[in-house]
Amino acid sequence: AFAPIAQGNVNTALRAGDYEPMEGEGKMNMKIDLDSKKVVNMEELAAGDKKVYCRCWLSGTFPLCDGTHAKHNDATGDNVGPLIVSGPKKE
Amino acid sequence: AFAPIAQGNVNTALRAGDYEPMEGEGKMNMKIDLDSKKVVNMEELAAGDKKVYCRCWLSGTFPLCDGTHAKHNDATGDNVGPLIVSGPKKE
Ligand code: FES
Ligand code: FES
Repeated sequence: AFAPIAQGNVNTALRAGDYEPMEGEGKMNMKIDLDSKKVVNMEELAAGDKKVYCRCWLSGTFPLCDGTHAKHNDATGDNVGPLIVSGPKKE
Repeated sequence: AFAPIAQGNVNTALRAGDYEPMEGEGKMNMKIDLDSKKVVNMEELAAGDKKVYCRCWLSGTFPLCDGTHAKHNDATGDNVGPLIVSGPKKE
């Protein structure tokens, strides 16, 4: 099962020490809550809900997607897109 | 309301023409389904479900988060984190 996220301050050296950034890996978030140490959003879905969530950090309606990912992909050759989550069907 | 995502092939020039990439904006996805034009995931939550979704494109359990974002943030000074979505409470 997924280990619970360590909320506390894990020793940075321990965490980053053995990490090899990928070629070209850089900052992704240039816009959203820049003064926050880590941007985490909590969402609740009701029965019948369907929401489209941003994963490119460029949406004007973050955490929801507004389609900006298409322009980002065209401009950078990336292929990122949203996460679509549905709640259980309405009875 | 959110306009439906244009699935068809929208004229690239039209889409990217007026788009100004942000300073430092580059590819975010170096690992996940690289042969796909746009990576979109569809997920369904049942009552009582709670899932942690990756928004950094580095998780080994994508589309779910596995904590790699913390190492990415430490290595790049970024502040990205997951999206936590819960279904309706179980009756
Ligand atoms: S605007 Fe960010 S994924 Fe669509
Ligand atoms: S591993 Fe990507 S947001 Fe946690």
